[in-house]
Amino acid sequence: MHELILNNFAMHIALAPDEQEQALTFFQLKKFRKRVSLLNAGEIDRHIYFVKHGCLRMFYTDKTGEDHIIGFYPENWWTCDIVSFFNVQPSANSIQALEDSEVYYISLPQLEKLFVIIPKFERFFRILNQNGFELYQRRITSQLYKTAEQRYLEFRKRHPGLEQRIAQKHIASYLGITPAFLSMIRKESGT
Amino acid sequence: MHELILNNFAMHIALAPDEQEQALTFFQLKKFRKRVSLLNAGEIDRHIYFVKHGCLRMFYTDKTGEDHIIGFYPENWWTCDIVSFFNVQPSANSIQALEDSEVYYISLPQLEKLFVIIPKFERFFRILNQNGFELYQRRITSQLYKTAEQRYLEFRKRHPGLEQRIAQKHIASYLGITPAFLSMIRKESGT
Repeated sequence: MHELILNNFAMHIALAPDEQEQALTFFQLKKFRKRVSLLNAGEIDRHIYFVKHGCLRMFYTDKTGEDHIIGFYPENWWTCDIVSFFNVQPSANSIQALEDSEVYYISLPQLEKLFVIIPKFERFFRILNQNGFELYQRRITSQLYKTAEQRYLEFRKRHPGLEQRIAQKHIASYLGITPAFLSMIRKESGT
Repeated sequence: MHELILNNFAMHIALAPDEQEQALTFFQLKKFRKRVSLLNAGEIDRHIYFVKHGCLRMFYTDKTGEDHIIGFYPENWWTCDIVSFFNVQPSANSIQALEDSEVYYISLPQLEKLFVIIPKFERFFRILNQNGFELYQRRITSQLYKTAEQRYLEFRKRHPGLEQRIAQKHIASYLGITPAFLSMIRKESGT
Protein backbone atom coordinates (compact mmCIF):
# COMPACT_ATOMS: atom_id res chain seq x y z
CA MET A 1 0.00 0.00 0.00
CA HIS A 2 2.76 2.44 0.93
CA GLU A 3 5.20 1.09 -1.63
CA LEU A 4 4.89 4.05 -4.01
CA ILE A 5 5.91 6.65 -1.47
CA LEU A 6 8.66 4.46 0.03
CA ASN A 7 10.13 3.84 -3.43
CA ASN A 8 10.05 7.56 -3.98
CA PHE A 9 12.01 8.23 -0.76
CA ALA A 10 14.48 5.52 -1.80
CA MET A 11 15.29 7.45 -4.97
CA HIS A 12 17.19 10.04 -2.92
CA ILE A 13 17.87 8.74 0.61
CA ALA A 14 18.50 5.33 2.19
CA LEU A 15 16.09 4.58 5.04
CA ALA A 16 16.32 1.63 7.46
CA PRO A 17 13.06 -0.41 7.80
CA ASP A 18 12.24 1.21 11.16
CA GLU A 19 12.87 4.68 9.71
CA GLN A 20 10.53 3.86 6.83
CA GLU A 21 7.80 2.89 9.24
CA GLN A 22 8.39 5.97 11.34
CA ALA A 23 8.38 8.28 8.32
CA LEU A 24 5.07 6.90 7.07
CA THR A 25 3.34 7.85 10.31
CA PHE A 26 3.96 11.51 9.43
CA PHE A 27 1.93 11.30 6.23
CA GLN A 28 -1.82 11.15 5.85
CA LEU A 29 -3.85 9.87 2.93
CA LYS A 30 -6.91 11.59 1.46
CA LYS A 31 -9.19 11.26 -1.57
CA PHE A 32 -10.17 14.24 -3.71
CA ARG A 33 -12.93 14.07 -6.31
CA LYS A 34 -12.31 15.38 -9.80
CA ARG A 35 -12.43 19.24 -9.99
CA VAL A 36 -11.97 19.68 -6.21
CA SER A 37 -9.49 22.41 -5.22
CA LEU A 38 -6.68 21.41 -2.87
CA LEU A 39 -5.40 25.01 -2.78
CA ASN A 40 -6.75 28.35 -3.98
CA ALA A 41 -4.45 31.25 -4.89
CA GLY A 42 -4.26 33.63 -1.93
CA GLU A 43 -4.58 30.84 0.65
CA ILE A 44 -1.59 29.46 2.55
CA ASP A 45 -0.54 26.07 1.21
CA ARG A 46 -0.63 23.93 4.37
CA HIS A 47 0.51 20.66 2.78
CA ILE A 48 3.00 19.01 0.49
CA TYR A 49 1.21 16.43 -1.63
CA PHE A 50 2.37 13.13 -3.11
CA VAL A 51 -0.03 11.64 -5.68
CA LYS A 52 -0.82 7.95 -5.10
CA HIS A 53 -3.23 7.83 -8.01
CA GLY A 54 -5.11 10.33 -10.13
CA CYS A 55 -3.73 13.63 -11.38
CA LEU A 56 -3.46 17.19 -10.03
CA ARG A 57 -2.68 20.44 -11.83
CA MET A 58 -1.08 23.63 -10.54
CA PHE A 59 -2.03 26.90 -12.22
CA TYR A 60 -2.06 30.64 -11.78
CA THR A 61 -4.81 32.99 -12.82
CA ASP A 62 -3.76 36.20 -14.57
CA LYS A 63 -5.26 39.68 -14.21
CA THR A 64 -7.82 38.99 -16.93
CA GLY A 65 -9.02 35.85 -15.12
CA GLU A 66 -7.38 33.40 -17.50
CA ASP A 67 -5.75 30.25 -16.07
CA HIS A 68 -2.20 29.22 -16.98
CA ILE A 69 -1.16 25.70 -16.04
CA ILE A 70 2.29 25.42 -14.47
CA GLY A 71 2.38 21.65 -14.23
CA PHE A 72 0.59 18.29 -14.11
CA TYR A 73 1.17 15.89 -11.22
CA PRO A 74 0.05 12.31 -11.89
CA GLU A 75 0.99 9.19 -9.85
CA ASN A 76 4.34 9.35 -8.09
CA TRP A 77 4.70 13.14 -8.36
CA TRP A 78 5.06 15.58 -5.48
CA THR A 79 3.48 19.00 -5.57
CA CYS A 80 2.94 22.07 -3.43
CA ASP A 81 3.40 25.81 -3.74
CA ILE A 82 6.91 25.59 -2.24
CA VAL A 83 7.13 29.30 -1.49
CA SER A 84 3.75 29.44 0.23
CA PHE A 85 4.27 26.19 2.15
CA PHE A 86 7.74 26.84 3.59
CA ASN A 87 7.29 30.56 4.19
CA VAL A 88 3.67 30.26 5.40
CA GLN A 89 2.50 33.01 3.08
CA PRO A 90 -0.38 33.36 0.59
CA SER A 91 0.06 31.18 -2.48
CA ALA A 92 0.40 32.66 -5.97
CA ASN A 93 -0.95 29.43 -7.45
CA SER A 94 -3.88 27.05 -7.16
CA ILE A 95 -3.92 23.23 -7.08
CA GLN A 96 -6.88 21.21 -8.35
CA ALA A 97 -7.69 17.55 -8.99
CA LEU A 98 -8.08 16.77 -12.71
CA GLU A 99 -9.23 13.20 -11.92
CA ASP A 100 -10.52 11.44 -8.81
CA SER A 101 -7.24 11.31 -6.91
CA GLU A 102 -5.74 9.84 -3.77
CA VAL A 103 -2.82 11.76 -2.26
CA TYR A 104 -0.45 11.51 0.68
CA TYR A 105 0.16 14.79 2.43
CA ILE A 106 2.26 16.25 5.24
CA SER A 107 1.98 19.60 7.06
CA LEU A 108 4.88 21.94 7.87
CA PRO A 109 4.80 21.28 11.66
CA GLN A 110 4.86 17.54 10.95
CA LEU A 111 7.65 17.97 8.42
CA GLU A 112 9.73 19.95 10.93
CA LYS A 113 9.25 17.09 13.43
CA LEU A 114 10.30 14.59 10.77
CA PHE A 115 13.47 16.64 10.12
CA VAL A 116 14.36 16.40 13.81
CA ILE A 117 13.70 12.66 14.09
CA ILE A 118 15.17 11.61 10.71
CA PRO A 119 17.51 14.40 9.55
CA LYS A 120 18.07 12.60 6.22
CA PHE A 121 14.76 14.07 5.16
CA GLU A 122 16.40 17.52 4.99
CA ARG A 123 18.32 16.11 2.05
CA PHE A 124 15.23 14.55 0.51
CA PHE A 125 13.28 17.79 0.59
CA ARG A 126 16.28 19.83 -0.53
CA ILE A 127 16.42 17.67 -3.66
CA LEU A 128 12.65 17.87 -4.08
CA ASN A 129 12.83 21.67 -3.92
CA GLN A 130 15.61 21.72 -6.48
CA ASN A 131 13.57 19.55 -8.82
CA GLY A 132 10.57 21.80 -8.32
CA PHE A 133 12.73 24.81 -9.08
CA GLU A 134 14.08 23.12 -12.18
CA LEU A 135 10.60 22.34 -13.50
CA TYR A 136 9.50 25.90 -12.84
CA GLN A 137 12.56 27.43 -14.47
CA ARG A 138 12.33 25.09 -17.44
CA ARG A 139 8.65 26.02 -17.77
CA ILE A 140 9.57 29.72 -18.02
CA THR A 141 12.56 29.34 -20.31
CA SER A 142 10.91 26.86 -22.70
CA GLN A 143 8.09 29.39 -23.05
CA LEU A 144 10.77 31.86 -24.13
CA TYR A 145 13.03 29.73 -26.25
CA LYS A 146 11.06 26.82 -27.69
CA THR A 147 8.35 26.46 -30.30
CA ALA A 148 4.90 25.19 -29.31
CA GLU A 149 5.64 21.92 -31.12
CA GLN A 150 8.87 21.37 -29.13
CA ARG A 151 7.00 22.08 -25.90
CA TYR A 152 4.26 19.62 -26.91
CA LEU A 153 6.81 16.86 -27.58
CA GLU A 154 8.51 17.58 -24.23
CA PHE A 155 5.17 17.30 -22.45
CA ARG A 156 4.50 13.90 -24.09
CA LYS A 157 7.96 12.68 -23.12
CA ARG A 158 7.62 13.85 -19.50
CA HIS A 159 4.13 12.40 -19.05
CA PRO A 160 3.64 9.36 -21.33
CA GLY A 161 -0.05 8.48 -21.65
CA LEU A 162 -1.28 11.54 -19.76
CA GLU A 163 -2.50 13.17 -22.96
CA GLN A 164 -5.35 10.61 -23.16
CA ARG A 165 -6.43 11.25 -19.57
CA ILE A 166 -6.88 15.02 -19.41
CA ALA A 167 -8.82 17.64 -21.33
CA GLN A 168 -7.21 19.14 -24.42
CA LYS A 169 -7.90 22.63 -23.07
CA HIS A 170 -5.64 21.89 -20.09
CA ILE A 171 -2.79 20.69 -22.30
CA ALA A 172 -3.20 23.80 -24.46
CA SER A 173 -3.14 26.00 -21.33
CA TYR A 174 0.06 24.28 -20.18
CA LEU A 175 1.66 24.86 -23.59
CA GLY A 176 0.47 28.47 -23.68
CA ILE A 177 -1.47 28.03 -26.94
CA THR A 178 -5.11 27.75 -28.03
CA PRO A 179 -6.83 24.33 -28.24
CA ALA A 180 -7.22 24.88 -32.00
CA PHE A 181 -3.46 25.38 -32.38
CA LEU A 182 -2.80 22.27 -30.27
CA SER A 183 -5.08 20.25 -32.52
CA MET A 184 -3.11 21.48 -35.53
CA ILE A 185 0.22 20.53 -33.95
CA ARG A 186 -1.10 17.08 -33.09
CA LYS A 187 -2.19 16.50 -36.69
CA GLU A 188 1.16 17.68 -38.04
CA SER A 189 3.17 15.54 -35.64
CA GLY A 190 1.07 12.56 -36.80
CA THR A 191 -0.37 11.66 -33.41
CA MET B 1 37.28 38.63 7.93
CA HIS B 2 34.89 35.68 7.67
CA GLU B 3 32.24 37.30 9.80
CA LEU B 4 29.83 38.03 6.95
CA ILE B 5 29.55 34.43 5.81
CA LEU B 6 29.42 33.07 9.39
CA ASN B 7 26.62 35.50 10.25
CA ASN B 8 24.83 34.32 7.16
CA PHE B 9 25.08 30.66 8.23
CA ALA B 10 23.87 31.66 11.69
CA MET B 11 20.62 32.99 10.18
CA HIS B 12 19.46 29.44 9.51
CA ILE B 13 21.59 26.93 11.42
CA ALA B 14 23.49 26.88 14.72
CA LEU B 15 27.15 25.94 14.32
CA ALA B 16 29.64 25.21 17.10
CA PRO B 17 32.93 27.17 16.85
CA ASP B 18 34.82 24.11 15.55
CA GLU B 19 32.10 23.50 12.97
CA GLN B 20 32.37 27.12 11.84
CA GLU B 21 36.10 26.75 11.35
CA GLN B 22 35.66 23.47 9.51
CA ALA B 23 32.93 24.88 7.27
CA LEU B 24 35.07 27.86 6.25
CA THR B 25 37.80 25.55 4.92
CA PHE B 26 35.33 24.38 2.23
CA PHE B 27 34.96 27.88 0.80
CA GLN B 28 37.43 29.80 -1.34
CA LEU B 29 37.64 33.52 -1.89
CA LYS B 30 38.21 35.21 -5.24
CA LYS B 31 38.16 38.72 -6.74
CA PHE B 32 36.36 39.53 -9.96
CA ARG B 33 36.82 42.82 -11.80
CA LYS B 34 33.79 44.78 -12.95
CA ARG B 35 32.21 43.29 -16.12
CA VAL B 36 33.91 39.90 -15.71
CA SER B 37 31.64 36.88 -16.30
CA LEU B 38 31.46 34.28 -13.54
CA LEU B 39 29.14 32.10 -15.65
CA ASN B 40 28.00 32.18 -19.27
CA ALA B 41 24.67 30.67 -20.36
CA GLY B 42 25.28 27.19 -21.76
CA GLU B 43 28.17 26.47 -19.36
CA ILE B 44 27.77 24.32 -16.27
CA ASP B 45 27.65 26.43 -13.11
CA ARG B 46 30.45 24.88 -11.03
CA HIS B 47 30.06 27.12 -7.97
CA ILE B 48 27.67 28.65 -5.49
CA TYR B 49 28.75 32.22 -4.77
CA PHE B 50 28.42 34.37 -1.67
CA VAL B 51 29.21 38.05 -2.21
CA LYS B 52 31.63 39.52 0.35
CA HIS B 53 31.65 42.91 -1.35
CA GLY B 54 30.67 44.27 -4.73
CA CYS B 55 27.61 43.26 -6.74
CA LEU B 56 26.75 40.51 -9.23
CA ARG B 57 23.83 40.23 -11.61
CA MET B 58 22.14 37.13 -13.07
CA PHE B 59 20.48 37.43 -16.46
CA TYR B 60 19.22 35.44 -19.41
CA THR B 61 19.56 36.38 -23.04
CA ASP B 62 16.47 35.93 -25.21
CA LYS B 63 16.30 34.73 -28.82
CA THR B 64 16.75 38.25 -30.11
CA GLY B 65 19.96 38.69 -28.09
CA GLU B 66 18.42 40.98 -25.50
CA ASP B 67 19.42 40.54 -21.83
CA HIS B 68 16.85 40.27 -19.04
CA ILE B 69 18.13 40.64 -15.50
CA ILE B 70 16.76 38.08 -13.04
CA GLY B 71 18.40 39.51 -9.95
CA PHE B 72 21.08 41.62 -8.30
CA TYR B 73 23.36 40.13 -5.64
CA PRO B 74 25.22 42.69 -3.54
CA GLU B 75 27.06 42.04 -0.22
CA ASN B 76 25.67 39.19 1.84
CA TRP B 77 23.71 37.59 -1.02
CA TRP B 78 24.13 34.07 -2.35
CA THR B 79 23.77 33.29 -6.02
CA CYS B 80 24.16 30.46 -8.50
CA ASP B 81 22.09 28.89 -11.27
CA ILE B 82 20.64 26.33 -8.83
CA VAL B 83 19.37 24.01 -11.56
CA SER B 84 22.69 23.98 -13.42
CA PHE B 85 24.80 23.64 -10.27
CA PHE B 86 22.96 20.79 -8.56
CA ASN B 87 22.08 18.86 -11.72
CA VAL B 88 25.43 19.53 -13.42
CA GLN B 89 23.74 20.67 -16.62
CA PRO B 90 24.16 23.70 -18.91
CA SER B 91 22.95 26.91 -17.33
CA ALA B 92 20.07 28.90 -18.79
CA ASN B 93 21.47 32.05 -17.19
CA SER B 94 24.67 34.08 -16.97
CA ILE B 95 26.32 35.71 -13.95
CA GLN B 96 28.48 38.83 -14.22
CA ALA B 97 30.19 41.29 -11.86
CA LEU B 98 28.59 44.75 -11.96
CA GLU B 99 31.32 46.16 -9.69
CA ASP B 100 34.76 44.98 -8.63
CA SER B 101 33.66 42.16 -6.33
CA GLU B 102 35.05 39.67 -3.87
CA VAL B 103 33.12 36.44 -3.48
CA TYR B 104 33.29 33.21 -1.50
CA TYR B 105 32.53 30.12 -3.53
CA ILE B 106 32.11 26.37 -3.09
CA SER B 107 32.01 23.57 -5.68
CA LEU B 108 29.48 20.70 -5.74
CA PRO B 109 32.03 17.99 -4.76
CA GLN B 110 33.11 20.17 -1.82
CA LEU B 111 29.51 20.86 -0.87
CA GLU B 112 28.70 17.13 -0.91
CA LYS B 113 31.67 16.58 1.44
CA LEU B 114 30.42 19.36 3.68
CA PHE B 115 26.98 17.68 3.84
CA VAL B 116 28.63 14.46 5.04
CA ILE B 117 30.80 16.17 7.68
CA ILE B 118 28.24 18.72 8.92
CA PRO B 119 24.76 17.44 7.91
CA LYS B 120 23.18 20.65 9.23
CA PHE B 121 24.24 22.23 5.96
CA GLU B 122 21.59 20.18 4.16
CA ARG B 123 19.11 22.34 6.01
CA PHE B 124 20.99 25.54 5.24
CA PHE B 125 21.06 24.86 1.52
CA ARG B 126 17.48 23.62 1.50
CA ILE B 127 16.43 26.99 2.89
CA LEU B 128 18.73 28.81 0.46
CA ASN B 129 17.12 26.93 -2.44
CA GLN B 130 13.68 27.82 -1.19
CA ASN B 131 14.61 31.47 -0.97
CA GLY B 132 16.07 31.32 -4.48
CA PHE B 133 12.88 29.72 -5.70
CA GLU B 134 10.81 32.38 -3.98
CA LEU B 135 12.79 35.21 -5.59
CA TYR B 136 12.48 33.58 -8.98
CA GLN B 137 8.75 32.96 -8.63
CA ARG B 138 8.14 36.46 -7.30
CA ARG B 139 10.12 37.81 -10.25
CA ILE B 140 7.82 36.01 -12.68
CA THR B 141 4.54 36.80 -10.94
CA SER B 142 5.32 40.45 -10.26
CA GLN B 143 6.03 40.80 -13.97
CA LEU B 144 2.50 39.47 -14.51
CA TYR B 145 0.57 41.18 -11.78
CA LYS B 146 2.31 44.39 -10.83
CA THR B 147 2.83 47.74 -12.48
CA ALA B 148 6.33 48.94 -13.35
CA GLU B 149 6.09 51.49 -10.55
CA GLN B 150 5.22 48.83 -7.95
CA ARG B 151 8.14 46.72 -9.17
CA TYR B 152 10.46 49.72 -8.95
CA LEU B 153 9.43 50.41 -5.35
CA GLU B 154 9.91 46.74 -4.47
CA PHE B 155 13.40 46.82 -5.96
CA ARG B 156 14.30 49.90 -3.85
CA LYS B 157 12.96 48.21 -0.74
CA ARG B 158 14.84 44.97 -1.36
CA HIS B 159 18.14 46.68 -2.18
CA PRO B 160 18.40 50.03 -0.34
CA GLY B 161 21.12 52.19 -1.86
CA LEU B 162 21.85 49.86 -4.77
CA GLU B 163 20.16 52.21 -7.23
CA GLN B 164 23.06 54.65 -6.86
CA ARG B 165 25.68 51.96 -7.52
CA ILE B 166 24.53 50.36 -10.76
CA ALA B 167 23.67 51.55 -14.26
CA GLN B 168 20.11 52.69 -14.96
CA LYS B 169 19.94 50.38 -17.97
CA HIS B 170 20.43 47.39 -15.63
CA ILE B 171 17.65 48.50 -13.31
CA ALA B 172 15.40 49.03 -16.33
CA SER B 173 16.27 45.55 -17.62
CA TYR B 174 15.43 44.06 -14.22
CA LEU B 175 12.08 45.87 -14.22
CA GLY B 176 11.35 44.84 -17.81
CA ILE B 177 10.99 48.45 -19.01
CA THR B 178 13.00 50.94 -21.09
CA PRO B 179 15.49 53.31 -19.40
CA ALA B 180 13.31 56.24 -20.56
CA PHE B 181 10.27 54.77 -18.81
CA LEU B 182 12.33 54.18 -15.66
CA SER B 183 13.43 57.79 -15.69
CA MET B 184 9.77 58.85 -15.92
CA ILE B 185 8.78 56.63 -13.00
CA ARG B 186 11.63 58.00 -10.90
CA LYS B 187 10.51 61.57 -11.57
CA GLU B 188 6.89 60.75 -10.71
CA SER B 189 7.81 58.94 -7.48
CA GLY B 190 9.81 62.03 -6.52
CA THR B 191 13.20 60.33 -6.21
